[in-house]
Amino acid sequence: MIKFGVIGYGYWGPNLVRNLFEVPQARVVAVSDMRTERLAEVTSRYPSVETTTDVQDLFDNPAIDAIAIATPVSTHFDLALRALRSGKHVMLEKPMTSTSEQARRLIDEAARRNLTLMVDHTFVYTGAVRKMKEIVTSGKLGDILYYDSTRINLGLFQRDVDVIWDLAVHDLAIMDYILPSGPCAVSATGINHQFGGTENLAYITMFFEGNLIAHLNVNWLSPVKVRRTLVGGSKQMIVYDDMEPSEKVKIYDKGITLNSGTDSLYKALVGYRSGDMFAPQLDVSEALKVEIQHFLDCIQTGKEPLTGGQAGLRIVEILECASRSMKQRGKLVELEASDLMLSQGAA
Amino acid sequence: MIKFGVIGYGYWGPNLVRNLFEVPQARVVAVSDMRTERLAEVTSRYPSVETTTDVQDLFDNPAIDAIAIATPVSTHFDLALRALRSGKHVMLEKPMTSTSEQARRLIDEAARRNLTLMVDHTFVYTGAVRKMKEIVTSGKLGDILYYDSTRINLGLFQRDVDVIWDLAVHDLAIMDYILPSGPCAVSATGINHQFGGTENLAYITMFFEGNLIAHLNVNWLSPVKVRRTLVGGSKQMIVYDDMEPSEKVKIYDKGITLNSGTDSLYKALVGYRSGDMFAPQLDVSEALKVEIQHFLDCIQTGKEPLTGGQAGLRIVEILECASRSMKQRGKLVELEASDLMLSQGAA
Amino acid sequence: MIKFGVIGYGYWGPNLVRNLFEVPQARVVAVSDMRTERLAEVTSRYPSVETTTDVQDLFDNPAIDAIAIATPVSTHFDLALRALRSGKHVMLEKPMTSTSEQARRLIDEAARRNLTLMVDHTFVYTGAVRKMKEIVTSGKLGDILYYDSTRINLGLFQRDVDVIWDLAVHDLAIMDYILPSGPCAVSATGINHQFGGTENLAYITMFFEGNLIAHLNVNWLSPVKVRRTLVGGSKQMIVYDDMEPSEKVKIYDKGITLNSGTDSLYKALVGYRSGDMFAPQLDVSEALKVEIQHFLDCIQTGKEPLTGGQAGLRIVEILECASRSMKQRGKLVELEASDLMLSQGAA
Amino acid sequence: MIKFGVIGYGYWGPNLVRNLFEVPQARVVAVSDMRTERLAEVTSRYPSVETTTDVQDLFDNPAIDAIAIATPVSTHFDLALRALRSGKHVMLEKPMTSTSEQARRLIDEAARRNLTLMVDHTFVYTGAVRKMKEIVTSGKLGDILYYDSTRINLGLFQRDVDVIWDLAVHDLAIMDYILPSGPCAVSATGINHQFGGTENLAYITMFFEGNLIAHLNVNWLSPVKVRRTLVGGSKQMIVYDDMEPSEKVKIYDKGITLNSGTDSLYKALVGYRSGDMFAPQLDVSEALKVEIQHFLDCIQTGKEPLTGGQAGLRIVEILECASRSMKQRGKLVELEASDLMLSQGAA
Repeated sequence: MIKFGVIGYGYWGPNLVRNLFEVPQARVVAVSDMRTERLAEVTSRYPSVETTTDVQDLFDNPAIDAIAIATPVSTHFDLALRALRSGKHVMLEKPMTSTSEQARRLIDEAARRNLTLMVDHTFVYTGAVRKMKEIVTSGKLGDILYYDSTRINLGLFQRDVDVIWDLAVHDLAIMDYILPSGPCAVSATGINHQFGGTENLAYITMFFEGNLIAHLNVNWLSPVKVRRTLVGGSKQMIVYDDMEPSEKVKIYDKGITLNSGTDSLYKALVGYRSGDMFAPQLDVSEALKVEIQHFLDCIQTGKEPLTGGQAGLRIVEILECASRSMKQRGKLVELEASDLMLSQGAA
Repeated sequence: MIKFGVIGYGYWGPNLVRNLFEVPQARVVAVSDMRTERLAEVTSRYPSVETTTDVQDLFDNPAIDAIAIATPVSTHFDLALRALRSGKHVMLEKPMTSTSEQARRLIDEAARRNLTLMVDHTFVYTGAVRKMKEIVTSGKLGDILYYDSTRINLGLFQRDVDVIWDLAVHDLAIMDYILPSGPCAVSATGINHQFGGTENLAYITMFFEGNLIAHLNVNWLSPVKVRRTLVGGSKQMIVYDDMEPSEKVKIYDKGITLNSGTDSLYKALVGYRSGDMFAPQLDVSEALKVEIQHFLDCIQTGKEPLTGGQAGLRIVEILECASRSMKQRGKLVELEASDLMLSQGAA
Repeated sequence: MIKFGVIGYGYWGPNLVRNLFEVPQARVVAVSDMRTERLAEVTSRYPSVETTTDVQDLFDNPAIDAIAIATPVSTHFDLALRALRSGKHVMLEKPMTSTSEQARRLIDEAARRNLTLMVDHTFVYTGAVRKMKEIVTSGKLGDILYYDSTRINLGLFQRDVDVIWDLAVHDLAIMDYILPSGPCAVSATGINHQFGGTENLAYITMFFEGNLIAHLNVNWLSPVKVRRTLVGGSKQMIVYDDMEPSEKVKIYDKGITLNSGTDSLYKALVGYRSGDMFAPQLDVSEALKVEIQHFLDCIQTGKEPLTGGQAGLRIVEILECASRSMKQRGKLVELEASDLMLSQGAA
Repeated sequence: MIKFGVIGYGYWGPNLVRNLFEVPQARVVAVSDMRTERLAEVTSRYPSVETTTDVQDLFDNPAIDAIAIATPVSTHFDLALRALRSGKHVMLEKPMTSTSEQARRLIDEAARRNLTLMVDHTFVYTGAVRKMKEIVTSGKLGDILYYDSTRINLGLFQRDVDVIWDLAVHDLAIMDYILPSGPCAVSATGINHQFGGTENLAYITMFFEGNLIAHLNVNWLSPVKVRRTLVGGSKQMIVYDDMEPSEKVKIYDKGITLNSGTDSLYKALVGYRSGDMFAPQLDVSEALKVEIQHFLDCIQTGKEPLTGGQAGLRIVEILECASRSMKQRGKLVELEASDLMLSQGAA
């Protein structure tokens, strides 16, 4: 039995607590939040859980083994560091930290203390993304040619992060999990429409070694909600549409083919091949529950989580580069520590 | 009655001929193509039409008033110039020419001879795009904040042009028509997957004066066909989905609003407003027929077509900049002749 | 403050308890279920709630004002009657009872004791259905010509009821609420595929006084989930698609028109008119919460609920007729008590 | 080379002529129509084709081998009989005739003269329906449990036929082709909204020997166009959506399964199994062209067409029964000549 303290009971915290209650090997001991009305919610729904406005109570509580942190990103580093120094395992909301330097320091701290540090890249634990990973790893797609994702909706403007840190982080976590390697350079564009905050829509192109390119379209100002990712291979292609109630992942038996056409002034010798479509059944378990079980498993076995500190760091590094490129209207920014860019899959 | 010669009977030529037959004030006199089997198609379907493998026959034919050119872009400049010099009005397939310099020379030639020069930006003449123009011009959207288009499908790889010149040209023509001004700088990225041709997918960001940004996603390697454009305004937003059998244009009464929230650490003061959606009935006339009627009207009245040489030039200039930026992985390219960038709407 | 006992903690009971906890004027005192493992669920989530395997404990508890019953339909009459005789208000799952005779006896019992009796026709309290009611009542549709609903999915086969009593009951509750009058005759067909149970797909036509017809298609064996209702009027028409994430209700400005065509051998003088489409914003409050608030309001004011005993009875009467017609392969069955068939709207 | 006369150049006739021109082994010699303006259309597009307002000219023309008839159904019998008596093969628009008695007389006439008589059930020749036939015949679906089709749109009201004869005829032709046997009894309901014509929406249930039921929903007054057919089997199920631009046929690996559940008061022992979905690539040849080639093949070989007179008759018999049942509000009508009801597939 692993006993949890949860910091932050805003948007995501209630999901954490609810899922922690549904996993038999976990128990929620205490929740902290600076807002007493949020804590009243906790008490009314889970009378057995202690509440406090002072996070230090959680760090000081010897009954707590692990801390889940669901607060704004600007607070992640400080809270996670204090949790680790108190000897607690940490499950940290995404993005991991505000800077890659902070991420590296958390990784070191956790390593030194033999504590499990996991970043809550929830999508990685969905049935859809795990199925995509399986397909990509199987080699059925042939050469991976592109990764193209659109994640747009009408969303509340964040104050402490731009749309890249809020939305693209999801796509980067999925990419990091399913692609065999990470990007080596980034060009991003975007705009801050001056509604008082940060950039509210952005476009990010990532260049990889070899024949692969990736692109993300993220937008807080779209009248329609779109969650669609294409993974194009030379033999097959995937469309992942998270708005579909079922059949979220479709595999198209379509690809490139050589024409021996004579109509050469008009058309190139390269054409396409069109075939069947297949939508595999997906595991519909709630991702957060699967993730919590994985976290518990990593705590007990000491193994690195699928979305551990290294994965969190890789994503923060790309976020940093993308924001830097966006400020310079698309100027190419190279990812320095490309040796760190190897994804879990390649490790 | 305007009598036409048509050059090129490949993919688009048959559509031109069919629509020219349906417009009472037009008549097709002759068709030329280098491929005799294509000409045999003409004869079997339209026995009254003369055919020739020598374009010069059309230029020399005094019965012909106007020439429609539907050949690969690399031939546009030469054929259009010869047509104008023969005293014929010209309707030229998009993109207008391979370079902006060529476009300028055609504009000059047509002006000097008082001939009508029109570029076949077909989408401008659809009911959907004309309705969007009407909405944007009415001011109902508030400030125009972004233009975001996706035009992807599994398409034959072109040999003489990259995907930007093949697909993005449509979006640029629509943008040029409905937006009040043109872009001042471009950052584009893309990839040539080395199937023997040119770049086969690309992403183009365009920066405008003021608070507006535009982005195009074009791809010849998508397993699904997407044709979707978002026009985001501060008060209302448009979604134009050309794959919808009806209700192609939807207007969302959604926009930005100010929160007076107290939950300020977590959420910014800027939020959104969500309201009704409205899909106006659209004129379903075939766009090419509407366009031909407009061309005839311009020939008779001498007025500049909605998609005349100037519009064609503006689009070619953006295409040039986008291709140049793409070669340099997103490097910002400024549009020089920004005074030419004023769209028809603002003129 | 109204204090509740809840009977049945299977599929729907947890939703009732959760929503009762969210309504400030309500409190859950006790839950009963015959299965101790279900009661353990209650205790773990709501430690303050008493649990019992003996329903009599709820009827005997003087602290309880109202009973919510979420058990199989075969038990409804007995449990509701005992609750009413114990002086408790009753909120009863749909369908109200197994027979119309039982429904009449419950109505009488509640009336005699001045207790509120409500049937949980949840859909009536959704934003979508309330909006449809508003549109129909406004007269904008013109004459109501037809009501056509499809409610199909792959569902667990029920043992004690056929698919009409399980699925069509939802459509009948919606129809009863939004149409100005009830049907006068029913013809139903269906099949029992002999998987051990009852009829698992059925088609129900209802005839009304005047120019109106209704049809329901219900099926437990469909590979796809469809929830779509059309309400056709002479001036406008509604499409209600509950599977849409937003824009569930669309109003089409389409209708009948007179042609003065001369092509009379081929086409009739009657044609159609096609216009704009409009999707009003809907209230997205959880229907069950709205319904509970309405129940509390009815208890306090003594007014008849929108979905009170009379509405429940009207639906059970149609269900009885439909099942009877289905057993005789479509034989027309007249609804006897047509004076009871007047819906809430007309009352 | 088979030479054709075409009777009727209204809605469908132009499609016939266009496709006849595209089949090398066919030639159109003459077209007749009572409306001279329709004949002028023929002449302008196909100057080589003779035109006449007198059908007798076609019957008398010895150069004509076959007659395609695309006129209102009330004229089918007379025109087809005269064509056969003139020694011409006949391709007749659907529905074949106004009565089954007429259909039988045409079959006899064609048989006596060794002429090919085909009914234009176009859908049977689409890639989608041929693929469905292949799947059903393969046995993969397991036992066929139901056939459920919706064919609704805003359509011109016909004068000489009701909606069953106009729209349901398509579904009956598809059913007749893909199901191993025909129905033995029909119950239909519908309404004539008194806009001057006939019944404009209808619901038809068909009972089969064994465990199969079929249902059709046809409607001229729907604001949305739906063309969806479900074929439910015990092992797999098909959804055929003709409005989808691609993936029109989807095969769901879903079916019935036995539960060994203990929760027996609430759920039956029968549940469902949910698996992958598969959308096979379809032949996209134009159906009418495939059909004409089949007609030519049958003329040359003397074999019975897939949609010959017998198939046409079977459908007319069901149409007669359905209209008769509809007039009596769902009264069951048995199909007498059930030995004729065997479909092509079972023959």
